[in-house]
Amino acid sequence: MQFSSALLESAVAEFSRLPGIGKKTALRLVLHLLRADPVQAQGLSEALVRMRQDIRFCQRCHNVADGDICSICANSFRKQEMICVVESLREVIAIESTQQYNGVYHVLGGSISPLDGIGPDQLTIESLVARVRKEEPQELIFALNPTIQGDTTIYYIQKKLHDIPLRITTIARGIAFGGELEYADEMTLARSISNRLPVDSYRAGG
Amino acid sequence: MQFSSALLESAVAEFSRLPGIGKKTALRLVLHLLRADPVQAQGLSEALVRMRQDIRFCQRCHNVADGDICSICANSFRKQEMICVVESLREVIAIESTQQYNGVYHVLGGSISPLDGIGPDQLTIESLVARVRKEEPQELIFALNPTIQGDTTIYYIQKKLHDIPLRITTIARGIAFGGELEYADEMTLARSISNRLPVDSYRAGG
Repeated sequence: MQFSSALLESAVAEFSRLPGIGKKTALRLVLHLLRADPVQAQGLSEALVRMRQDIRFCQRCHNVADGDICSICANSFRKQEMICVVESLREVIAIESTQQYNGVYHVLGGSISPLDGIGPDQLTIESLVARVRKEEPQELIFALNPTIQGDTTIYYIQKKLHDIPLRITTIARGIAFGGELEYADEMTLARSISNRLPVDSYRAGG
Repeated sequence: MQFSSALLESAVAEFSRLPGIGKKTALRLVLHLLRADPVQAQGLSEALVRMRQDIRFCQRCHNVADGDICSICANSFRKQEMICVVESLREVIAIESTQQYNGVYHVLGGSISPLDGIGPDQLTIESLVARVRKEEPQELIFALNPTIQGDTTIYYIQKKLHDIPLRITTIARGIAFGGELEYADEMTLARSISNRLPVDSYRAGG
């Protein structure tokens, strides 16, 4: 693409470095910002710089935080003795959006994946083990992605914690709400049959 | 969506104000910037602010410019006596990308559309008329979108310039290269038949 302005060209180039944003989309966004109120470009720009400079990670659960401790850990209305172990911030946001979980989190930073060069040391597993020993929570809920890597990670952490009296659970896996049985894969369907639930425990939010 | 950080939330909110960017895409972009080198967020932020603050419009053709005159008008290798009239910056970029046009431009800022409240006064038509009187170009090429509004605009400007000796043309309309005849609309097909070309003038770039 040929631009008659170096300023425009550099804005388009910076936008198109983002994932899933090509040159044409970047140009569309830049031309929008050029036409819109200058306050909008200013606002976006400032929000990005502030986020990148000031954001920190919670010293307790490794979630993003505006201070030393994230707002979830700092909230005394939440059950501090129930820890949901997730891979990343994305899962925290997804679970928080359900508004059904009232415990706290521990963000691992990924899952054990030797093929990708990610071992236990790259994750916050040591920190989780130390936290469990110190805080003595009642329950650890694993909400990892249903992959070989996720299962390996659960197995590894469970081994590490075998001497601590603690309830360890994982989120239910089965047919998604609204999903159709005939399109479910065999693995999911087989598991959902072997882990079947009594009908009276099956209620929304129950 | 629930965020545990106000900084993250404001960055997502700013991104999702852009056209075609929803909350989920905004979150994906923000999480990417959070993981990537801090230089990337800084670069995007600075490019946006500099573009919005420093970009100007060419005093001659109303294209975006880094100074008083855009780089196309300032280029002495381009034919200054051939002016291509376009609606917006997008068309300048599209035509420049073909690398086949060697004249200069005039950006109208839209086309006459009474239903949208856009009359000749909202466009740079007066400036074009004054420019033609002053510079006495040889040719005016209209490259407006093939709509009623585009045609109205061409008609209006042509009337304004009727007393000036000047060749006025419009870009060819017809079947797109690679397009299939059976899917072309009647209007395009009918026009492409009535404006048929001798085969020997039909060469790429000819």
